[in-house]
Amino acid sequence: MQFKLTSHEENVSVITSIAPQFGLYNHCCRSNFDALHTLVKDDLLDVNSTIISKMQSSIELIPQIAGHIVTSGGKRLRPMLTLASAGLVGYEGTRHIDLAACVEFIHTATLLHDDVVDQSNLRRGQGTANAVWGNQASVLVGDFLLSRAFQIMVADGSLKVLKILSDASAVIAEGEVHQTIIKNDLETAETAYFQIIENKTAVLFAAAAQIGAVIAERPEREERALEAFGRNLGVAFQLTDDVLDYSAEQLIRGDDFRDGKITLPVILAYAAGNDEERAFWRRTIGDLKQNEEDLTHAQSLMLHHGTLSKTLKRAREYANAAHRNLSLFAPTAHRIAMNEVIDFCVDRVY
Amino acid sequence: MQFKLTSHEENVSVITSIAPQFGLYNHCCRSNFDALHTLVKDDLLDVNSTIISKMQSSIELIPQIAGHIVTSGGKRLRPMLTLASAGLVGYEGTRHIDLAACVEFIHTATLLHDDVVDQSNLRRGQGTANAVWGNQASVLVGDFLLSRAFQIMVADGSLKVLKILSDASAVIAEGEVHQTIIKNDLETAETAYFQIIENKTAVLFAAAAQIGAVIAERPEREERALEAFGRNLGVAFQLTDDVLDYSAEQLIRGDDFRDGKITLPVILAYAAGNDEERAFWRRTIGDLKQNEEDLTHAQSLMLHHGTLSKTLKRAREYANAAHRNLSLFAPTAHRIAMNEVIDFCVDRVY
Repeated sequence: MQFKLTSHEENVSVITSIAPQFGLYNHCCRSNFDALHTLVKDDLLDVNSTIISKMQSSIELIPQIAGHIVTSGGKRLRPMLTLASAGLVGYEGTRHIDLAACVEFIHTATLLHDDVVDQSNLRRGQGTANAVWGNQASVLVGDFLLSRAFQIMVADGSLKVLKILSDASAVIAEGEVHQTIIKNDLETAETAYFQIIENKTAVLFAAAAQIGAVIAERPEREERALEAFGRNLGVAFQLTDDVLDYSAEQLIRGDDFRDGKITLPVILAYAAGNDEERAFWRRTIGDLKQNEEDLTHAQSLMLHHGTLSKTLKRAREYANAAHRNLSLFAPTAHRIAMNEVIDFCVDRVY
Repeated sequence: MQFKLTSHEENVSVITSIAPQFGLYNHCCRSNFDALHTLVKDDLLDVNSTIISKMQSSIELIPQIAGHIVTSGGKRLRPMLTLASAGLVGYEGTRHIDLAACVEFIHTATLLHDDVVDQSNLRRGQGTANAVWGNQASVLVGDFLLSRAFQIMVADGSLKVLKILSDASAVIAEGEVHQTIIKNDLETAETAYFQIIENKTAVLFAAAAQIGAVIAERPEREERALEAFGRNLGVAFQLTDDVLDYSAEQLIRGDDFRDGKITLPVILAYAAGNDEERAFWRRTIGDLKQNEEDLTHAQSLMLHHGTLSKTLKRAREYANAAHRNLSLFAPTAHRIAMNEVIDFCVDRVY
């Protein structure tokens, strides 16, 4: 069977039919993030204050642009991992606040540079910094935030933390460059894709979580467990993100498709496709020659071959590994909240 | 008198007439850089090896792009300041090699991001990384090099050095953002211009020189003297650069003019101009509406008002201050070579 969908009505009906099989509309899962949010609420307020105060500069455009992205409704997932890990291992100091802000600055710098890179016009429904202020400002304010993150780490004074986050920062850049190389390349191997998402996404999750154990001076095995938890969670998160870009809730975006980005749902669909389907992928993703109805057709091919559900299944495997990583720790309120965040990351609907 | 030059012949004759009054053709000055070059030759070979080895990555595009700019004929002026300072204060270890490479990586990252920013197509006569590989790769490889610089510093293990270079890196970004803000703004105050060149250029010169004293654990006053030397040299260097962009040797570029960049020669020419001249500057620099002969006319206005020679005079004042900073040290071969580099930076013809 081959899907030939052209009208908006058919599009909607197909996507609606995909959703239940993924549990994408499992709204109860929203609360899973709230549990952790409640636990680290006070810390998170401090992190937000730190972010606002540390992004200041005598050059007023810097906090304007940084603020545009820092306050654009992000979930602060990465800094929350630092707060959660610190709480999990019983850390009682205040260093986790500044270091969580560092993690968010590194992430924000990546977003600012990613906007230049992908020439995307929308992120979370707002105009990107790039679209509003141009490439120049996005790149330079990203540089400022990355440098500011290192200044904060230096003030914190731990060479170990500096090593973790400078290593992460270099690996993120490698992952991003690697991603630009495979763009439009439908022959990309699954292993290359997994290497990229581990580097560009999971490494910062891992570093964010590991830092909590480092500042609490916990034993090596706890540090390693939290690092692995973050890494597995990050991969699960990115796999889910790559599914969501083709899902109903994200229909207004379809950014990955329009950019010719190679993600697992595409790799699997191309591998499973017949000659005609492969020609479709080569035209739309390989050569970026796209018609209005192509995204809908891409989604229908993914439904036909089950590549979105296969990708989500992989996400679930990584999520399960993250759960196992946390099993080293006693089932405190923090651990349970972190378990819930894992599930939230693979079940989220936004 | 007002210049109305339109033909290429007049252009050449005017520019040739500017040069002698600046001493731009004082070719004996080339050797001034060679003295330092000879002194630090072995160290510089080690720095170059370090640069090549530390820019490696499993993502082959990274050393390709980094190598394009790292090996494109730059003088390694900034890392040489670290080597020179270390030699000046009698440092006998090997840390200056890696840290000089860090300084060059930070500078290279700035160049890669600057190419994106200015959409310039040529740097030192070669296609920019941006022109060859696109904005994406330039930004991301710049990020990689900046992160790699911090990794090297972390391995070196000095929080003081990390503070100096992370502070420098943040200030450079502030200077670059500030520069984009005043672009095309002819009402820019001289003080704003000097703030920008101090931030975007002189701060890295200062940091590079200071590090030599830091790793040799020299007294605070020597550290401060080398920091001030670098800062004054950096301002002198940038002022000279801004003159050269309107000089005969650089006629093939005129990048600043075409970009509508506000530099001291322009600020002074606009301030001294009559109504007609100000209208010219507003059209060409303010609105970027330029004809083929406008650069020549801009140069003739600068000649008329002596703004290039006034700018070079300011450069010379900063150079003299740099000489005074070095007077704290005994007139060893290293100090004399550094004195010669100061003169070279304001007298250079390339």
